[in-house]
Amino acid sequence: MAAERTAAEILLTCQSVAIIGASDDGDKSSGRTQRYLRMYNFEGRVYPINPKRETVQGLTSYAKVGDLPEVPDLAVIVMPQSGVEPTVRECSDFGIPLAIIFAAGYAETGAAGTEFQQSLTETVRAGRTRVIGPNCNGSVFAPSRLTAGFMTGLDQDRWELRDDGIAFVSQSGAMGAFILNMAQTDGLGMGRFISTGNEIDLTMPELMRQLVEEGTTRCLLGYVEGVRDGRALEDALRAADQADIPVCLMKVGRSERGAAAAASHTGSLAGADTVYDGVFARYGVQRAISVEHLLDMGRVFASTRRPAGPKVSIVTLSGGAGVLMTDYAEDLGLEVAPWDETWQAKMRAVLPTYATSYNPIDTTGAIASDQDVLVNSLTISLDNPQTDVLMILLGNMETDEERICDTIIRIADSQYKPVLVTWVGGSGRPLRYLNAAGVPTFTDPVRAMRAAAALVDWSLRSKSTGELMKDGPDETIASVVAAATGEYVDEVETKQLLAGAGIRTVAEEGVDTPEQAAGVAIRIGFPVVVKLLSDEVAHKSELGAVQVGLANADAVAAAGADILRRAADAGIAGGRLVVQQQLPTDLEIILGSVVDPTFGPVTMLGLGGVLTEVLADVQVRPSPVDEGEARTMIGALRGAALLRGVRGRRGVDEDALVRTIVAFSRLTARAGDRVRSIEINPLLVDADGQPVAVDALMELNPLTGTDTEETADA
Amino acid sequence: MAAERTAAEILLTCQSVAIIGASDDGDKSSGRTQRYLRMYNFEGRVYPINPKRETVQGLTSYAKVGDLPEVPDLAVIVMPQSGVEPTVRECSDFGIPLAIIFAAGYAETGAAGTEFQQSLTETVRAGRTRVIGPNCNGSVFAPSRLTAGFMTGLDQDRWELRDDGIAFVSQSGAMGAFILNMAQTDGLGMGRFISTGNEIDLTMPELMRQLVEEGTTRCLLGYVEGVRDGRALEDALRAADQADIPVCLMKVGRSERGAAAAASHTGSLAGADTVYDGVFARYGVQRAISVEHLLDMGRVFASTRRPAGPKVSIVTLSGGAGVLMTDYAEDLGLEVAPWDETWQAKMRAVLPTYATSYNPIDTTGAIASDQDVLVNSLTISLDNPQTDVLMILLGNMETDEERICDTIIRIADSQYKPVLVTWVGGSGRPLRYLNAAGVPTFTDPVRAMRAAAALVDWSLRSKSTGELMKDGPDETIASVVAAATGEYVDEVETKQLLAGAGIRTVAEEGVDTPEQAAGVAIRIGFPVVVKLLSDEVAHKSELGAVQVGLANADAVAAAGADILRRAADAGIAGGRLVVQQQLPTDLEIILGSVVDPTFGPVTMLGLGGVLTEVLADVQVRPSPVDEGEARTMIGALRGAALLRGVRGRRGVDEDALVRTIVAFSRLTARAGDRVRSIEINPLLVDADGQPVAVDALMELNPLTGTDTEETADA
Repeated sequence: MAAERTAAEILLTCQSVAIIGASDDGDKSSGRTQRYLRMYNFEGRVYPINPKRETVQGLTSYAKVGDLPEVPDLAVIVMPQSGVEPTVRECSDFGIPLAIIFAAGYAETGAAGTEFQQSLTETVRAGRTRVIGPNCNGSVFAPSRLTAGFMTGLDQDRWELRDDGIAFVSQSGAMGAFILNMAQTDGLGMGRFISTGNEIDLTMPELMRQLVEEGTTRCLLGYVEGVRDGRALEDALRAADQADIPVCLMKVGRSERGAAAAASHTGSLAGADTVYDGVFARYGVQRAISVEHLLDMGRVFASTRRPAGPKVSIVTLSGGAGVLMTDYAEDLGLEVAPWDETWQAKMRAVLPTYATSYNPIDTTGAIASDQDVLVNSLTISLDNPQTDVLMILLGNMETDEERICDTIIRIADSQYKPVLVTWVGGSGRPLRYLNAAGVPTFTDPVRAMRAAAALVDWSLRSKSTGELMKDGPDETIASVVAAATGEYVDEVETKQLLAGAGIRTVAEEGVDTPEQAAGVAIRIGFPVVVKLLSDEVAHKSELGAVQVGLANADAVAAAGADILRRAADAGIAGGRLVVQQQLPTDLEIILGSVVDPTFGPVTMLGLGGVLTEVLADVQVRPSPVDEGEARTMIGALRGAALLRGVRGRRGVDEDALVRTIVAFSRLTARAGDRVRSIEINPLLVDADGQPVAVDALMELNPLTGTDTEETADA
Repeated sequence: MAAERTAAEILLTCQSVAIIGASDDGDKSSGRTQRYLRMYNFEGRVYPINPKRETVQGLTSYAKVGDLPEVPDLAVIVMPQSGVEPTVRECSDFGIPLAIIFAAGYAETGAAGTEFQQSLTETVRAGRTRVIGPNCNGSVFAPSRLTAGFMTGLDQDRWELRDDGIAFVSQSGAMGAFILNMAQTDGLGMGRFISTGNEIDLTMPELMRQLVEEGTTRCLLGYVEGVRDGRALEDALRAADQADIPVCLMKVGRSERGAAAAASHTGSLAGADTVYDGVFARYGVQRAISVEHLLDMGRVFASTRRPAGPKVSIVTLSGGAGVLMTDYAEDLGLEVAPWDETWQAKMRAVLPTYATSYNPIDTTGAIASDQDVLVNSLTISLDNPQTDVLMILLGNMETDEERICDTIIRIADSQYKPVLVTWVGGSGRPLRYLNAAGVPTFTDPVRAMRAAAALVDWSLRSKSTGELMKDGPDETIASVVAAATGEYVDEVETKQLLAGAGIRTVAEEGVDTPEQAAGVAIRIGFPVVVKLLSDEVAHKSELGAVQVGLANADAVAAAGADILRRAADAGIAGGRLVVQQQLPTDLEIILGSVVDPTFGPVTMLGLGGVLTEVLADVQVRPSPVDEGEARTMIGALRGAALLRGVRGRRGVDEDALVRTIVAFSRLTARAGDRVRSIEINPLLVDADGQPVAVDALMELNPLTGTDTEETADA
């Protein structure tokens, strides 16, 4: 029965805890868990296990797991690394459904530790106790008053453990503990905390999914260092998206980005962090840009209030602050809508004559000194249908802070719209008081505006369809790959695969001789391009093996002869030629697919030329993408305006580009393991605005000797 | 004698204050200044002036200014608007050198207030009392214990007014008061505060310059809503730059930016805020991106420690935090240099075995629990010559916080390198304790890294040469302008002016007939471009009046005839032709000059095409710029790599481009009032990498009827 409960359910409802290796000294790391359980009023049963003692910190001590009077919900293993593995076996034998292991000394310490970890992992897999850790900081759950941790951050006198439905899963133990402390100190009910440690069994994605599925978590925060199983992360994020639970993540380890900017081909551009960005975009995940930003987002998402639109009304007692907030609202895509005359008049009627009654509203200091001005200006601002989110800026005012806070809380409760307060300077008490009352409050107007932007972005996003790829590998690709002898499938054959998937490709034909080339060119129509066709050459232009703008048959024949000569000089055997219709090059698109080690095949969209090469302006998503997502990718490019035809330039038929991206992503998702990458570069735009694959290449993973041996062995 | 002291000097050394209109009720706004002076232990003489009372708050009251027993250093006028102007006259008559006016009801309130303000301004100008305000919040100076304000933010019990040489000048009264409070609460010695109000006499730039010149201010912060006199701001910033005083500004009102991105020509791209960015770049001003960022920078600049290079060493007790900090260090252009083996070995010797001894250093929790690890790891990190800035991350640890703080302070004092601490979570006491001890401390590692980046950027910048334009208007331009009949000076004549200034221009010749064009083309060499030459047409290409790639004399003659026909059809009279050498267009640069209403003529550099049009990637500086600054402008473009020749593309000779920018900026700085803009678009790059002005246009301000009348009247 117990085994059917998830770890999240157990932690949220835990009634009994065994502390294995418990110390009588409550200050020692092995003694703190028991002390904290008492300190935070854990109401369940606590069973210290310590064979050397009769009692531990006043409770009866047991010699071993098997002696316990009941099967506890949770075992907290606080002993050092050497004793952990046999203990896990005992827990499993006794039927304990969940264990948390604090001990370090595993894979994080090098070769020897890695061996210990492998051995422990096997033991866990063979048993029936699920495990969090090792090398973790513990789990803290306010609903059950469970403080299954040893972090000294729990030693403080500023806060009771509070729960507003904010869960926080952290791959960094120390940062996790710091952030938990910071949140609770600010009056923020981060009441569900898990430090995941080395994740030999329960991983961050699995725990996130469990927290979503359990059903009482309102907002999920995470500190991510790296996820091994991208599919599991997508599963967790999809579940949260479907359940309307916002997810905000601090993902560290972006250093690949620098490399991406300098790289030449899509393979490098789809650096791991760019893929995370794509995954986050897919599921509406809000990515934190700082620790405080992570908490700021938790602050707004802990409330269930969601804006109906992007319009913010700003009420300040300072014109200068109003301008500052308007700047950032615009930067962040929010609207500081000018109120219509009716509502301006309502506001004018309640403000002093030299106040400003249009958005942003400067009430002057009267908002602090005159209770009527406070009540009326806030009520009108919140009632106004031109307000989706109300932003209030105040500061200092210690002598009146409680009255003002109570008024704000009362007015905020009169409508179901988000109300965000910034309180600059002062005693700090309004911050805690308002946050604890469910009115998200900030110390800096820019932080408040960023949180509002996250709230609006999340609330107005299109949900992912949750459509998953069900089909197996594409059989046409499989047969082409099986027949391939080199590292590449040549451009003509690659484009035939693309055409088969419904992607428009350039008119072209492969030939053996310059004379045949001239004949084909006449059929295609001038001007044409003539290129070397070989599966040995990825970058033809470097070899001078591409000639463009050929306007008649003689020019084609001459170019063909020249190209074959250069190929022969470079030692390329069996070179053929391809004759191709020449398309305008004023709008170049790149569409590529590579295999990300974490997320599998990913689709990359970029604009050719400067934007991709110099600014690394690309969008990446795990394949396949659907039509809505393809459209999002297009819009998210910094150079999107170019695709849409900015300032007299021609653009691409966006629907056709969307269909092309979807078809490409579905094809490449099914390309199979031998395919290392597929790239359309360039995808040009013909006179009708249709995207046309002009050059394309499929790169294969070599069949190594090792592969062959393994096959032979099997 | 008193008149010779600047306002800044008076405020810093003030010995006597008259409070004009003082109330006996210390809670009223007209009573608070006197109460605050007592509360903060102002040691000079205080003279309340109130004709209705014998005493005010226990001090002898005077009936009028003329009754005072001495000429005070400062008059604080706390009476309402109606009484201000005669009072200012009295102050002047009595010889008081400086007055602060709180009263609102002036230009900020509309037409009537604007009249009051004009009248008051004239009175001030006619007298000898310098004025801060009106409509200001006051001035607070810790060195003299002068709290000449009425803001209730001074009513608190958390801080004594502390001075670390941080001055703050704010155009927003309310935000100024909030930020002052916030800083002091955090232990930050912002001990010199001026709210500038409506600036009828002393302006923000003038007060900034006075604070610099007085000599004891270490760091200057400002909240800028808008400066009327750009030259005065430049003077203040130049003075600070020369005196090695860092300036950090929050400049609000960036909304023009959105417009700039959509605009087509350089005139719009040089939106006011972009010009501020250019001015800030010129003088090393650090621009704040949030209120907290402004304070964070104050925190690091209050110390006189300056890094010798961009190398940060990061010491944490959390691997995850180390990765996070490395991400942001890289984003912000700092180096997380890998330590060499010698120093890694030193670190290894003092850390636990499973700690990380290369940068970023993860000491594990031992840094908190083991005093030797704390001392040794920090000492080694700071001693290492591969450390320019030491970043320490800690968190929570309330029970040990004082010991750890004291150790950090001691070690930081052993070297003259910047040491920045991030303390996440915990009691908040380490923040105040370390800041007060001169070790800048932050609650978020990203904020700490941003502050470090500002410190490095400022410390390693090249100083502006301070070279000013001394010459009068350019006489050649003046004569061309005087002869001009339309709104434009044509491209041939404009390029002749540019050539005269030493800028390389394209080989070209103006002709009257298609036949002459063919003759010129033969002389220049094919291919050539033929264009319409007219001072009526700014955008020739829209008219089809530009034909390129003309390869022989017949083509040139035909093109010329076609262009003249199109011009005639469009009703353009007197059209001529220009025949031009055709240059490669793979690298397009735009160089423009417009007149900014605040800063005068400015020089704008951008890359042609996509980057300028879609991404608004331009750099703007007030003209003229020197060679170092031109080089900085080039490097600051997001597309700088293109100019330098990225990935096989050819680049421009950077020295030649620098010389071109300097020559252009010096010419345009001297263009005179009639010139509205001068633009080189494009500046192309010839086969030798030399920048060549291919098209250029000078736009003139019309000679309006009004101008003529005024001239006639004069």
